[in-house]
Amino acid sequence: MSHILTLNSGSSSLKFALYPLAGADSLDTLTPRYRGMFSGLNGGTPRLKLQDSEGRPVAVDMGELPSRLELPDAMAHLLSWLEDLPDLSLAAVGHRVVHGGRDYQQPVAVTPEITAALGELESLAPLHQPFCLAPVAPLAERHPDMPQVACFDTAFHANQPEVARQFALPREMTQRGLVRYGFHGLSYDYINRVLPRHLGDARRERVIVAHLGNGASLCAIRNGTSVATTMGFTAIEGMPMGTRSGSLDPGLVLHLIQQEGMSAEALTETLYKRSGLLGVSGISSDMRELLASPAPEAREAVDLYAYRAVCEIGSLAAALGGLDQLVFTAGIGEHAAPVREAICRGCEWLGLELDSDANQRDTDQISTADSRVGAWVIPTDEERMIAWYTAQVAGLV
Amino acid sequence: MSHILTLNSGSSSLKFALYPLAGADSLDTLTPRYRGMFSGLNGGTPRLKLQDSEGRPVAVDMGELPSRLELPDAMAHLLSWLEDLPDLSLAAVGHRVVHGGRDYQQPVAVTPEITAALGELESLAPLHQPFCLAPVAPLAERHPDMPQVACFDTAFHANQPEVARQFALPREMTQRGLVRYGFHGLSYDYINRVLPRHLGDARRERVIVAHLGNGASLCAIRNGTSVATTMGFTAIEGMPMGTRSGSLDPGLVLHLIQQEGMSAEALTETLYKRSGLLGVSGISSDMRELLASPAPEAREAVDLYAYRAVCEIGSLAAALGGLDQLVFTAGIGEHAAPVREAICRGCEWLGLELDSDANQRDTDQISTADSRVGAWVIPTDEERMIAWYTAQVAGLV
Repeated sequence: MSHILTLNSGSSSLKFALYPLAGADSLDTLTPRYRGMFSGLNGGTPRLKLQDSEGRPVAVDMGELPSRLELPDAMAHLLSWLEDLPDLSLAAVGHRVVHGGRDYQQPVAVTPEITAALGELESLAPLHQPFCLAPVAPLAERHPDMPQVACFDTAFHANQPEVARQFALPREMTQRGLVRYGFHGLSYDYINRVLPRHLGDARRERVIVAHLGNGASLCAIRNGTSVATTMGFTAIEGMPMGTRSGSLDPGLVLHLIQQEGMSAEALTETLYKRSGLLGVSGISSDMRELLASPAPEAREAVDLYAYRAVCEIGSLAAALGGLDQLVFTAGIGEHAAPVREAICRGCEWLGLELDSDANQRDTDQISTADSRVGAWVIPTDEERMIAWYTAQVAGLV
Repeated sequence: MSHILTLNSGSSSLKFALYPLAGADSLDTLTPRYRGMFSGLNGGTPRLKLQDSEGRPVAVDMGELPSRLELPDAMAHLLSWLEDLPDLSLAAVGHRVVHGGRDYQQPVAVTPEITAALGELESLAPLHQPFCLAPVAPLAERHPDMPQVACFDTAFHANQPEVARQFALPREMTQRGLVRYGFHGLSYDYINRVLPRHLGDARRERVIVAHLGNGASLCAIRNGTSVATTMGFTAIEGMPMGTRSGSLDPGLVLHLIQQEGMSAEALTETLYKRSGLLGVSGISSDMRELLASPAPEAREAVDLYAYRAVCEIGSLAAALGGLDQLVFTAGIGEHAAPVREAICRGCEWLGLELDSDANQRDTDQISTADSRVGAWVIPTDEERMIAWYTAQVAGLV
């Protein structure tokens, strides 16, 4: 049976999913036969998790993982396993690519020229882009005729108004691409497409989606189009995250370098790896641990997180000219009821009335029936979005 | 007659005003006998403007200004002129000091110890703090027994909730003072104090003041106390300004240094001197010129400025839990009706209804009688605020 393989390759992990082509003509019928993730790549302790279509763990027969696993080895393991699976052929592979720059505003079939062009964007996302592109070449070598499709995390934001994209920098800097791209676009795209199924005929002209995962951003969507988002040129602007600082006075960055003599490298490490929930709490980057902790420092981190989300929602509501619906998604958004509660309480002034009982259940509508602004918990599924685009672009449906 | 002298000393200018002590017991009765400004100091073309109590230009008899004037020379000119004025003695001098750090949350009588302590804050505001403090020593030498009072631009924000002050940085960085201080506090303090006179018995629990001058910030005031503001650790965060960028993805700052090889010094120069309205338009940092220009680039800069103000207002309204009144002040806020109009149109979703005719007249209430959120134009007067504090702290009233 013919399948689409999706790959989401990061600095220490490789997520994959396998979708039978049979259901690929609609987002609704795309169901993964397997989903899995290699973690601890490139220096950590390698692990592999695999689930079947029902989300049940599957014992994996990919041979022993070595004590250290680089991404190419993980790819080789994955491909050998796939080739050994009975009744399986690969029709196409879809890749999540963090950065499409200014030119790639739609998913695109990968050619050597496009791989080169995307490689040139590495300086825009040095911590992410190289990993996204790494699986392309080994796949092309092993399956030269198989279509590969690149799906961009920036593409959903490409049609934002210029005022939302532009920094107040000298014109020539803006013109050469130093603008706000925004990220998590595949997640927003997916939520945007499944929204009608959840909302029925509720108003959805002005929607804010809060993608609160290990990375976190929020997006303002007007009539299906992104008009503003909190992540900017890089994936650090906006919300505080697990270990990332989020927005920061640019004068403070300069102060740390000029007055305190920090190197840009050490500062990058601090802002990406030692800040956010981890930095504020001094305890953990994991929201579950912080919510379970009695330490006041943990509470402080959670409070700051919720406060910043509330302020970002105010700013995005201003860009939208008001708010009809607020959607929570991704790890924290889908599972951290106390965080959603704190954020929704901070949005009461917008006309949002939380249904606390519904919120405890982590599912679908969590605002009261009378609430002027609706609040929702909707699981995101970037892999499914990639599979759908891949089927489209590769001409398989 | 006894007077209070106020000084507001910047990198290239020295503003001063002279208030008869007789009216110093109330903000309402403080009326300057003279107001003046040296501009073009420290390298530019020195100029001196002087106005009388009615704001009429006064021909100045301070002798010829040399072709280059340093701050100490300007101080000497000013003091000689004051000493020659008939019927005048100095009771005290009040200084605007940009940074009070964590310790100075109220105006304070200057002692050698305090001057030293404030000097240690120079690294927090290297472009401003040294100039604020420079006049203290020459004055003390000439008038050793005259009280000098330091009034801080940060003080009004000192009681903000921690979530509004804190960056999501590692705890030890927050603990050693790398927090959001906020600025323009003397302006906000003044507006906050004169507000009741303008608003009568209109609701004023939740007020946003937009101080839009050459520097620009906004402040959320709940029941008279600052709860959030857009400028942070330095005077560059928040709104785009004449030549300053305002908020910027911290990842972009790092990118410019690490990927593009810019020096921190060149970047500081770019973000403080070549960005903002000047950078976006490529034409001018002066809002009047941009509003008068037919160039699309000028329009682009004005549009970005208004958009960013609208988003900041949304964020501050979230911190306040709603909005009762919006006040415009400082150069652009008091005089640029088209900018106020664009911002107020962007706030219609909050319940603000602009009275366009009133807005054209630049004065007092510019919202309609039915508007749920009031909008106002109220001239700020930082000098008067300094004079009032100086009289209080020096025990002259």
